[in-house]
Amino acid sequence: MNQLENIHTIQSTPTLIQTDTLRAEVITAWTQLQMQQPLVHCITNSVAANYAANVLLAAGASPAMIDNPFEAESFANIAAALSINLGTPTSEQMQAIKIAAQTVTAKSTPWVLDPVGYGAFLKWRSAMVDELLLLHPTIIRGNASEISGLAGNQVQSKGVDSSIASHEVYQQAIPLLAHCECVAISGESDFILSKEHNAVIQVNGGSDLQPKITATGCALGALIAAYSAVSTPTIATLSAHVHFAIAGKLAFSKAQSVGSFNVAFLDAIYELNAETIQQCADFEILNIE
Amino acid sequence: MNQLENIHTIQSTPTLIQTDTLRAEVITAWTQLQMQQPLVHCITNSVAANYAANVLLAAGASPAMIDNPFEAESFANIAAALSINLGTPTSEQMQAIKIAAQTVTAKSTPWVLDPVGYGAFLKWRSAMVDELLLLHPTIIRGNASEISGLAGNQVQSKGVDSSIASHEVYQQAIPLLAHCECVAISGESDFILSKEHNAVIQVNGGSDLQPKITATGCALGALIAAYSAVSTPTIATLSAHVHFAIAGKLAFSKAQSVGSFNVAFLDAIYELNAETIQQCADFEILNIE
Amino acid sequence: MNQLENIHTIQSTPTLIQTDTLRAEVITAWTQLQMQQPLVHCITNSVAANYAANVLLAAGASPAMIDNPFEAESFANIAAALSINLGTPTSEQMQAIKIAAQTVTAKSTPWVLDPVGYGAFLKWRSAMVDELLLLHPTIIRGNASEISGLAGNQVQSKGVDSSIASHEVYQQAIPLLAHCECVAISGESDFILSKEHNAVIQVNGGSDLQPKITATGCALGALIAAYSAVSTPTIATLSAHVHFAIAGKLAFSKAQSVGSFNVAFLDAIYELNAETIQQCADFEILNIE
Repeated sequence: MNQLENIHTIQSTPTLIQTDTLRAEVITAWTQLQMQQPLVHCITNSVAANYAANVLLAAGASPAMIDNPFEAESFANIAAALSINLGTPTSEQMQAIKIAAQTVTAKSTPWVLDPVGYGAFLKWRSAMVDELLLLHPTIIRGNASEISGLAGNQVQSKGVDSSIASHEVYQQAIPLLAHCECVAISGESDFILSKEHNAVIQVNGGSDLQPKITATGCALGALIAAYSAVSTPTIATLSAHVHFAIAGKLAFSKAQSVGSFNVAFLDAIYELNAETIQQCADFEILNIE
Repeated sequence: MNQLENIHTIQSTPTLIQTDTLRAEVITAWTQLQMQQPLVHCITNSVAANYAANVLLAAGASPAMIDNPFEAESFANIAAALSINLGTPTSEQMQAIKIAAQTVTAKSTPWVLDPVGYGAFLKWRSAMVDELLLLHPTIIRGNASEISGLAGNQVQSKGVDSSIASHEVYQQAIPLLAHCECVAISGESDFILSKEHNAVIQVNGGSDLQPKITATGCALGALIAAYSAVSTPTIATLSAHVHFAIAGKLAFSKAQSVGSFNVAFLDAIYELNAETIQQCADFEILNIE
Repeated sequence: MNQLENIHTIQSTPTLIQTDTLRAEVITAWTQLQMQQPLVHCITNSVAANYAANVLLAAGASPAMIDNPFEAESFANIAAALSINLGTPTSEQMQAIKIAAQTVTAKSTPWVLDPVGYGAFLKWRSAMVDELLLLHPTIIRGNASEISGLAGNQVQSKGVDSSIASHEVYQQAIPLLAHCECVAISGESDFILSKEHNAVIQVNGGSDLQPKITATGCALGALIAAYSAVSTPTIATLSAHVHFAIAGKLAFSKAQSVGSFNVAFLDAIYELNAETIQQCADFEILNIE
């Protein structure tokens, strides 16, 4: 994505939002997720398929991994949200991705784009991501390298892992709001850019072990999609990040190595409740210059 | 499957079978599984591939996921059983499925059909399932929505999860015995329809957490296939369901959240033995009107 | 592989190597793996994708599963090592495998070939393995059945699991050194044939539960690739096997059933350090006649 047609800038007078209000809305979103158990259409990679499905089930949603081009349209038509992840694309998945994205766009169903590995060394998927941007995904989420690359910067990539820090990137990502409602950048802290609120929200928490577990970012993208079925893009993105950040922090308090941490993490995703969100959600609204 | 050629009905005079006899046969089947370690040819989905293989290894079988059309025939020829699952089909898998099903049918090797997501919104796989029915799978297993749809009912589906209860469906499923030896419906209780015994067996146990773990149904289908290599269709289907129901119940007594439950579940699948089956197997034979 | 062009034989005067020297080099390799976190290009099967990625992350490497033919060349060009596994090949993966192998061969980037299921019943992949041998993989690893078959013997295969013991096979495998720098055979003990040292190294440890966990062999192949990015072929192969053998032994001391063992195994892969290698590495150099 080297040429953005519209350069969107964060305005100098942000919509007045407060963390207390947002926290209450996150609790509402979590409650709605449990009640509605929305059907989430996921097109994801071979590494994440099982893990993302388990995360969504644990969080309260109903995932379905439908990634063939022959069923993508009919299924996207009944799904409450769509999650597209380009981790290990096949030709048939690529067709399914395009069909599903067009279908949900036509129906105004929310969808999330996770441009795994976006960059110069993975051109096939990157070209598809550029195409998908024109359909205006509801939310774009990725790590710092992917989002920076997507915003038109030359990034030294390290495969599918990020080589730069999230806090260095979020200012660069502002122009991407021309293509979507929210941009989320995961890292040591996560940064969520909201077009609606003209604001950036920094989410703290999680654990250093999370990048040591594969597919956590992919599962987070799918969880954002699940929340987008029951709330606004900003609240959905924030809710999924808060859900992950709290679960990561609680899991690390129980287990400090990767295997047992991952088990504790899934437990914590499942065990989250309104009280825990109220007590543990850790985010702040940043001023943008 | 809207038109069944033969409507099979459960006769008014069921073959006399008793739970004690069945329990002894389940123990024999489990013992044979440990001794023979049958080679099970699995064609399954990207979500279930790892999990189903681990369940089969833990239970004593030897799984091999061979899902390309170029090796499907030669491998189906040496396999002791075949498990076909249509969770995330690709064009190459579809070809492999057809070849493998034809091969095992010709050799009278037992095979299991799991019509994941059967219904109006997933027509590509549903058409393949209809074709496969004509080859007479040994056993058909699915959740209540899938089995009800397969029996010709209009079902409101929720993706790949069931929207109806298993006990509401088993009477509807009787006509499916025209196409196979057994039909198994998983749910809060599981129901197994046996053509041989003209009976329905209800299997209790398991845990409410099982539907919160993805691919448990898919792994159950593969386990039925493993047991079918060492016993009759009815005993194979019953043994796999009893194996799962006991493991689910024991796991829940150790762990009440999804991540740790899943670990305990795999432990319990592996640790099952004849004594545990004798003590914990919980099933009953139902009268059909 | 029925006709070997060059029959390589282990010479009567092996290079003098000592276990103390090798142990020190394994510690250096492990240290380098932590420091360099090499980018490992993996083309693997649907069963192993998640597991192998988690093992590599836990061990300190940076895995990327890039298995489409459209990105295989550009990505293989930047990877520090390549791991090729033929567990569940698709047509697109087959193209990617060939392109990636040719690319790394041209750049002298080390690569590992894992010929899963090599043998008479799986001819499509076996023909590809034969082709790949001509490109001279740096390291070939497999179980005893696969390696014996690859060395030209008629093996009674049991799907993808071995039907023979590793110690019966390593002498047969010597001719394979005409095609690579190292051959590794996993089993109750593992055997590593080194062309450089004209020697066979037997690695002890691990746990009887490891064959009960699917994809451990596949993950081991990927870990050899990771180590090959930071050390010589012999030390890389030895380091990965020692890493696995220690982790397997430590995990079994904590957990004796498959689910909990697997969690403890991933923990132990992550927790390995120089001191543990110094104390627990258990291998010996064998005399070859």
